[in-house]
Amino acid sequence: MRTYLDCYPCFLRQSIEASRMAGADQSQQYDVVLRVLELLKTISPGATPPEIGLEIHRLVREMTGNPDPYSQVKKEATERALGLLPRLRSIMDESENKLETAIRLCIAGNIIDFGLNRDYDLWQEVERVLTQDVAINDIELLRKELQSARSVLFLGDNAGETVFDVLLIERLLVPVTYVTRGGPVLNDATKEDAYAAGINKVAEVMDSGVQAPGTIRSLSSPDFREKFKKADLILAKGMGNYETLSEVDAPIIFLLQVKCPVIARDIGASIGSTVVKKGIGLKV
Amino acid sequence: MRTYLDCYPCFLRQSIEASRMAGADQSQQYDVVLRVLELLKTISPGATPPEIGLEIHRLVREMTGNPDPYSQVKKEATERALGLLPRLRSIMDESENKLETAIRLCIAGNIIDFGLNRDYDLWQEVERVLTQDVAINDIELLRKELQSARSVLFLGDNAGETVFDVLLIERLLVPVTYVTRGGPVLNDATKEDAYAAGINKVAEVMDSGVQAPGTIRSLSSPDFREKFKKADLILAKGMGNYETLSEVDAPIIFLLQVKCPVIARDIGASIGSTVVKKGIGLKV
Repeated sequence: MRTYLDCYPCFLRQSIEASRMAGADQSQQYDVVLRVLELLKTISPGATPPEIGLEIHRLVREMTGNPDPYSQVKKEATERALGLLPRLRSIMDESENKLETAIRLCIAGNIIDFGLNRDYDLWQEVERVLTQDVAINDIELLRKELQSARSVLFLGDNAGETVFDVLLIERLLVPVTYVTRGGPVLNDATKEDAYAAGINKVAEVMDSGVQAPGTIRSLSSPDFREKFKKADLILAKGMGNYETLSEVDAPIIFLLQVKCPVIARDIGASIGSTVVKKGIGLKV
Repeated sequence: MRTYLDCYPCFLRQSIEASRMAGADQSQQYDVVLRVLELLKTISPGATPPEIGLEIHRLVREMTGNPDPYSQVKKEATERALGLLPRLRSIMDESENKLETAIRLCIAGNIIDFGLNRDYDLWQEVERVLTQDVAINDIELLRKELQSARSVLFLGDNAGETVFDVLLIERLLVPVTYVTRGGPVLNDATKEDAYAAGINKVAEVMDSGVQAPGTIRSLSSPDFREKFKKADLILAKGMGNYETLSEVDAPIIFLLQVKCPVIARDIGASIGSTVVKKGIGLKV
C-alpha cells in the first residue's frame, strides 16, 4: 500500500509522540518536528508508510539519543497481556472451534498499538473481537492452507500482542518461524519482546534485519529474504505488515484490526473491523 | 494562546481537507501539502493558531483557485440550523432561566465546526449541552456584566452556529454588534452567512477585516479595532476567538465547546466540555 496524503499528518503526530516517549524536552521536540517536515517533503511516490516510519523513528532515536523510546511501554504491554493469559487459555479450553478462537484472540491482541491509540481496554477488546463478525473472512481458506503447509512464517507486530500470537501458534501444528523487527521501532516487537512473551517456546524466533514498523523485503537480511521466498504460508500480523506486503505476490494471509481511516479505505472494511484476508499471491 | 507542536499535524490535516473541499485533484493536494510543510517550518514562536490558519487557508484558496471551499458546507449548516429553529424557540419559550438556556443553546451551536469534526448530530448536541454541567461556569458573571453593559460586541464563529447566536442576542436587551470574519476561511461565518441566519434582524453586522479563523487585532480593520477598544463587554464564540484573545486584556467572556486536546489542556477542561469563561481583562 502506498503512502496516502492522509498519512502525512499522522507521521508528524507520531514523531512528536515518539520524541516525548524518548524524554525529549520542548526544544528537542521542536527540532524533531522541523526535521520531519523536511523529510516529509522528500517522500517518494509509491513508498509504503513503514518505509517512512523507518526514517522518522530513526531520526527520533538519533536526535533524542534514546535507542528505544517505547521500551517501558513494551514491557508493560507484555506484562499486561501475560496477566490475561490464564483467562485467555480458559477461553481456548472452552472453545469448540479452537482454530477460529485462536485467530480471533490473536487479532484481539492487535489492539496493542502505540502508533495510533494508547487508550484501550484489553479485556474489552478480547470480548469484542471474540463475538463480532469478521469483516473480511478468509478463515476457512487459512484452515485449508494450514492443512497442506509444511511450515508457517509468522510475521509479528507489536510487543504484548506477541502473547496473543502464542495462542494461535500453538494451534498451527506445523513448525513456525516467528519474525520480529530488526530492532526497536515504535512499540513493535523485537526478538527480546518475543522472548519475554514466550514465543521462543512455540516457534523459532528470528528478526527481519530491518528496524521498520513493517516488512520491507529489499532492506531485510538475506536469511529473512530466503525464508520469505521459500515459505509455504505466511501469516502477517497488523497494519504495518499489510502496508508493506499488500501488493506482494506471496502466499500471505493478513490478520489485523483496522485502526486507521487510510487502511479502512484501502482494505475495504471500516475502523474497528477484524480482518483475515488472503494476499494477492494466494490463489483459490 | 500560542501554537503548540500538537497543532502542526492538525494544520496539515486541515490543509488536505480544505484542498479536497476546494475540489483539488491528487496532484494539487500534494502541491498544497508541500507548501504547507514549508510554511510550518517558518511558524514564529508565539503565533496563535488562527494566524497560521490564515496563511494555510489563503494558500489553499490561491493554489486551488477556489475562493470559498466551504461555501456549500456553510449553506447547508445554516439551513440545517434554521430547520431546528422552531424547536429551539420552543425550548426558549418553556425555559425558566432564559438567559442560561440561551447561553447553552448558543454554545451547543458551536459543535458546527469543520476544522475538526464533520460528524455530529445537531439535535443530540442541543440536548447534551442543555443538560450537562458547565465545566467552567462564569454564567453569573456574564449576567452581572450584562446588567451594566450599554452594548455588546459579539464575535461570531462558524456558519450555522450563527442561527444559535440569534437566540442569545435576543436575550441581551442591549444593542449588539455582531462581528464576522473578513472573508471566507474554513467554515467560519462571513457577513453573508450572518445575514442568511438572520443576525441582521437582531444586531448590527460588521466584519473584522481579516480572513482568519479567529480575531487577530493587529490585522483587523481600524473600524473593528475601535469597536473592540471601546467595548463594554465582548462575547467571543468558539475556539479560534479563544486562541487569539485568551491573553488579551479586554472585557471578554468566552463561550465555547472544547473540541481539541490542545485547547482542553490550555483552558483546563476536558474535550466535550461546555465553557463560559471570563477573559483576563474582566476583574471580579
